[in-house]
This record gives sequence, C-alpha cells and structure tokens, in this order.
Amino acid sequence: MDTHPYLVGLVGTGVRPSLTPALHMAEAAAQGLSYVYRPIDLLEHDLAPASIGDLLDQARVFGFDALNVTHPCKQLVLAHLDEVDPVAAGLGAVNTVLLRADGTTVGHNTDTTGFETAVRTHLPDADLTEVVMLGAGGAGAAVAAGLARLGVEHLVVVDVDEDRATRLAHDLALRHPAVRADGASPDKLPVLMDAATGLVHCTPTGMAEHPGLPLDATLLHGDAFVADIVYRPLRTALLDAAEAAGCRTLDGGHMAVGQAVDAFRLITSLEPDVERMSRHLRDLVARAGS
Amino acid sequence: MDTHPYLVGLVGTGVRPSLTPALHMAEAAAQGLSYVYRPIDLLEHDLAPASIGDLLDQARVFGFDALNVTHPCKQLVLAHLDEVDPVAAGLGAVNTVLLRADGTTVGHNTDTTGFETAVRTHLPDADLTEVVMLGAGGAGAAVAAGLARLGVEHLVVVDVDEDRATRLAHDLALRHPAVRADGASPDKLPVLMDAATGLVHCTPTGMAEHPGLPLDATLLHGDAFVADIVYRPLRTALLDAAEAAGCRTLDGGHMAVGQAVDAFRLITSLEPDVERMSRHLRDLVARAGS
Repeated sequence: MDTHPYLVGLVGTGVRPSLTPALHMAEAAAQGLSYVYRPIDLLEHDLAPASIGDLLDQARVFGFDALNVTHPCKQLVLAHLDEVDPVAAGLGAVNTVLLRADGTTVGHNTDTTGFETAVRTHLPDADLTEVVMLGAGGAGAAVAAGLARLGVEHLVVVDVDEDRATRLAHDLALRHPAVRADGASPDKLPVLMDAATGLVHCTPTGMAEHPGLPLDATLLHGDAFVADIVYRPLRTALLDAAEAAGCRTLDGGHMAVGQAVDAFRLITSLEPDVERMSRHLRDLVARAGS
Repeated sequence: MDTHPYLVGLVGTGVRPSLTPALHMAEAAAQGLSYVYRPIDLLEHDLAPASIGDLLDQARVFGFDALNVTHPCKQLVLAHLDEVDPVAAGLGAVNTVLLRADGTTVGHNTDTTGFETAVRTHLPDADLTEVVMLGAGGAGAAVAAGLARLGVEHLVVVDVDEDRATRLAHDLALRHPAVRADGASPDKLPVLMDAATGLVHCTPTGMAEHPGLPLDATLLHGDAFVADIVYRPLRTALLDAAEAAGCRTLDGGHMAVGQAVDAFRLITSLEPDVERMSRHLRDLVARAGS
C-alpha cells in the first residue's frame, strides 16, 4: 500500500467501448499496482471538444496522473499544455498528457511511437524503400511520422481527398528531410502497388462497422508487407487477402498494444510486459466480440 | 479484472494529510479490489467551498463512484443532491455522496452512524442515562445524533458558545422526542459531571496542534465512561486522565474507523472487516507520527 495508486482517464467522443482502460488495468494488476483508468466520454456528458482545457484543470484537481486523449481533442489539447515532446510537437497532436506532481503538464504521442515499436518488434526487417500508405487522417499522420522515424525512403500517401494526402506528405517531408513523400489519389494504386515494398492501411475500412477491403486484392503481391491499423477485428479482410497473396503481415493489435505500452511506461515509469499486454489485448478483443 | 475498479475522493479544506484515503485503500487491497481514493483539497486548488456543486458534476464526468465530503462542504453539498438519507437529512449534513450508475446522487452521514457503531461495538453496555457532550460544532452535531439513535435519555451539550449548545440541544430534541436535551456553558461542568454517566468529547482539544485537557481532570470519576473523538493522537491527555480516574474509555480511532467502515460498505456494497480496518488505522496513525 506504499506504492502510488494510479489514476488515469481517456478523453474523447465514443470512448466508452475502448479497450484501452481494461488493457492498462490488466497490466497494472499483473504488476501488483493499484491503477484505475476511466473513460471520459464527451458525448455522454454533452461536453464540447473545446472543454479539453477545463477537463485538464479538473483532472489535476481530482488527482489524475495522466489522461489519454483521442478524437476530437488530440490537436485542441496542445494549447493547454506546459510542454510537448518532440514527436507530438512534430505531429501537432497529443494522445497522452502527463499531469506531473509539480502541477505542470507534458504531452506525448504514443500513436506514433506505438506503431514504430510494433514494426521494430514484429517486422524488424521490413523493406521501407517504397511504402504506400492508405488514409491521410489523424491515424495516417501519426503512422506516417512513425514510418519516417523508422527510415522510410519513399512514402506515397493515398487518400480519396488527394489534397489532404498531398498536405500530409508535404508536412512530413518538411520535418523529415531524408524522406521523400508524395500524395496521390486511389486511381494511382495499380502503378504504386506494383513498385511497393510495403502497404500500410490507415482508414476505417475493415472495422466491424465498415466491412470490406480498402483496395483491390489483386494489387497485393508477396514482395510487399501489409500492415493494418484496424484491430477490431484483429483479422481483417485486408490481412486475409494479404496472406493469400503471400505477404508478410502486421495486424492492428500490435500498434494498439504499442501505444498502450508506451503510455503505460510514461505514466508509471515502469516497464510493461509487451507480450503480456499483447495477450491481454487479444483476449479483450475476443471477449468484446469483434 | 472483471470486478469494478472503484474511484473515490475526499473533498474539503486541509484534507491532504487525512488518513481516510489510505484506510479505504488498505481495506480494498485486503479484499483484492482495485480502489483508488484521492484527496481533493479546496485550498490547494484555490476553490471556494461553494464549488462543491461543480465538483460533484465533474466527479460524475470523471467516473467517481463516491465522494467523502468534509469541512466546509458538509452542509453546502445538500442542495446539489438528488436524495438524502434520513440520518443525514435529520442532521442537515452529508459526509458521503454516492454517484450512482444512473447519474443520480444520494447523501449519507457516516459520522453519525460511525460513532453509533463504535459505541455499540466497544462500549455496548454504556450507561446513557445522563451524558455530557463537550463541543457543539459539526462533529458534536453528528455525535449527538448518534447518541440519540443509541437511546441517550438526557444529553447536556456544553460549549463556550452557550447559544450554539442550546440550539444543537433544541434541534436534537425536536427530531428525537424521546431525548431530553439541554445546552450549557462550561462553568456548569462541576455539577453536570457529578451526575453524569458518561462524557463525550467533541472539541479539537487534545489534537497534536491543540494539546491539553478540555475540562478539569478532577471532574472525571469512575462512574462515567469517557469517549473522545480526537484520534490524532489516539491517546489523548483526556483519555489518560480518564483512565487514571477509573473510567471506561473509547478512543477516537473507533469513530474514525466506524465512519470509514460505513462509507466503504455504502460505496462497495461489500462488508469491510472492522478489526482489520481498526488495525490499519492504528498503523497509519503511528506511521504518520501522531
């Protein structure tokens, strides 16, 4: 009872069904820590996204150690922080805020580092010469930064909104001069995939509520690894098609675990057991029924 | 990990050193529960006592199961509750608010029930014919209600502010018609103590920062039990003098444990182990150095 009891929250819209609270608490329990992690759903409480600043102040009063922050607050929260780490600052988005004992706050982004760790651990020799990334939204931005940190040579961001894809590619190249980055529309996929050494999927297609394939399965070939960030379900139509085409694959559970592993480490300064957290996530997804 | 992880707070001024959070968490740990209990100190955060209503709303957003409430919010909180149990309503003061899953709140007062349980458990045959109570503040009001529920026949409330003593006695008699209650000033203590079958002490005298005796030790006699509500230290000058005079005694730790036991039961719907909580409190007081 002399160890610090941890208190953590997850702020965003629709966070009630998130598996992240249970994932953190299971790892904490396995380490013998007292650790309570609450979902704080803006919609349930009729709170505007701009209330994130007030929520941070209140979380400090209530003795929270940290908040994870998700859609639609990852950018909004920046203005309310005392410090932002370089990864989060480069991305302009924060998913983990530490409320330090001295009353100050610091923002991190473990979406980026979590993806990075997932690739390093489970596809350590992935060929990052020519990578195609589908989806230029917030998840895509975090993953693109992770790919840049992993050493991608040429990244082509593909989105139905070609302007958004081009902007993301442009921003990435500005911050990572060693990376060549371009934006493209989906009609270029046949040419792009032909040259690709990897495909990273960052759209919602394949989630339980958005079933289907994000690209024509015939474009997949065994020379390109396929990484999916969808993790509910863990087994997506894309991964099925990729394995049928002989691709090496990385499922979205690894990124989900990676972001939780990095957040847990930041919050507790303790080393989580990655394999145990991975087993927990897979159990939780199975129990949640998707 | 399928049991509910509990989140509880204690709101008031100067609550940071309170032993109540550690007392709850130790019992929860012994029961294998995940249970985080945070002090929420109004002074530290420059919050007005009237902000208790906002704090209740915020606590609901952050997923708190309950708040204990102490000075100066025990009365102020009433106006913000959906329901108040009869003990708390009779007293006009709440020290435990449950934030129920349906979004409603209910207030209880475990100061009263905690004192009652302490007497029933540790002085079960206390003679409640003629009881003198020192101190007509908030603690005195809660204890007086407990004495009425225990069946006191005649209660004399003594306070340096005789009007306050008389008001408390009057209010008590209105709510408990079977009790005769009077107020008096301390100069009446020689006569009152001569007839007393018991003395209950509800002022801060004897606490580490207010050392000393709350009345002339020569007024104590072996026919009157002495109960102290001061519990830091557990062993007060009053209890020393009372034991020297041959009195049966009840230290303040029993009331402190009683209120925590009752709050824990309300919050968890589980039965706490009273003896274990009592040992924990005594350990905590010893470790806190008072």
